[in-house]
Amino acid sequence: MKLHSYWRSSAAYRVRIALHLKQLGFETIPVHLLRDGGQQHHIDFQQRNPSELVPVFEDDDVMLNQSLAIIEYLDETYPAPALLPKASLARAHVRAMALDIACDIHPLNNLRVLQYLTGPLALTEQQKLAWIQHWLAVGFTALEQRLALSAGQYCYGDSVSLADICLVPQVYNALRFNVSLQPYPNISRIYQHCQQLAAFVLAAPEQQPDAER
Amino acid sequence: MKLHSYWRSSAAYRVRIALHLKQLGFETIPVHLLRDGGQQHHIDFQQRNPSELVPVFEDDDVMLNQSLAIIEYLDETYPAPALLPKASLARAHVRAMALDIACDIHPLNNLRVLQYLTGPLALTEQQKLAWIQHWLAVGFTALEQRLALSAGQYCYGDSVSLADICLVPQVYNALRFNVSLQPYPNISRIYQHCQQLAAFVLAAPEQQPDAER
Repeated sequence: MKLHSYWRSSAAYRVRIALHLKQLGFETIPVHLLRDGGQQHHIDFQQRNPSELVPVFEDDDVMLNQSLAIIEYLDETYPAPALLPKASLARAHVRAMALDIACDIHPLNNLRVLQYLTGPLALTEQQKLAWIQHWLAVGFTALEQRLALSAGQYCYGDSVSLADICLVPQVYNALRFNVSLQPYPNISRIYQHCQQLAAFVLAAPEQQPDAER
Repeated sequence: MKLHSYWRSSAAYRVRIALHLKQLGFETIPVHLLRDGGQQHHIDFQQRNPSELVPVFEDDDVMLNQSLAIIEYLDETYPAPALLPKASLARAHVRAMALDIACDIHPLNNLRVLQYLTGPLALTEQQKLAWIQHWLAVGFTALEQRLALSAGQYCYGDSVSLADICLVPQVYNALRFNVSLQPYPNISRIYQHCQQLAAFVLAAPEQQPDAER
């Protein structure tokens, strides 16, 4: 198994957590999103994923993009430990929280969007930071309210799930942009709790072969 | 069953298509995203969905947000017709295409983002339109390349799936913002083909009780 990944990509980070939770060995193929005009735009990567985004998961003739699709595929193919509850309604709640992050927060603060803000739109660094912090605050405020009802030790009860897999990289991203977790006690608590699992530690950006100081 | 919906919301449109494909009767509860400062921000809606976004699906004690989570729930609960293929790898490809739209295109052109562009960032209408058209072009270019490999009559072979359910509202949105489909023959062809199914016609924005001229 190979994962085309960038150490700081939230979406690649999600898949790394899932692979480690399932104890699946994989090779990291680094794709540097900033170097050489962005290696994700190079022809050999573009042929793997026309969207020119990481991650891409490769396993023999399997070639998949989109972190959540990859993780659901892994969960169907290697069922233990399960990353979604068994009951349909519970699965839906977990998927909804994962999508609250993957659709409503992360895409707005993705590298290509920030590049558009400071490139064609000529925003200042301060305006860019305000944009990032705005969407994190909107998203985390809603998620915190939801977690007050659903969370146990993890986002949904006491089992680690797809929702935690999405939450931790998003919190990592928030901390990087100086967003305080003080208004979000549930998010903060779950983030800390996840860090006690080896899979989350091994998947962290700083542990990756392409990590930079 | 109740769907809290806005006629022009792409995400609500997706769930409407799924409900009609499965021939499930539902009541539309209109949530006007522009009137009264945005009815999605009102307390009674906020209690249903802290994210203050449509759609919300309600059925007795079931209350769900996130269109893709709702549709997967419907697909697990009311299996016919199936909206995902049976084989895991095929399911993953369909989910990935759905997410190519739901994560990489739609969130960037959502109402609240456009409001931030013209509000706090004080962009002109022309800059806003360029932003919309940019992300549609980036997303559709990648999707067109993918469809060249996967499509039959629909996005994935000859069965309607979650990918088509996401594609059609996104194309509706693109046409509204004067994006030509001429560079995207597969997208255009699949869009036309879907319009021959009653479920897609019944789910269209103009057919909704809250549609405006």
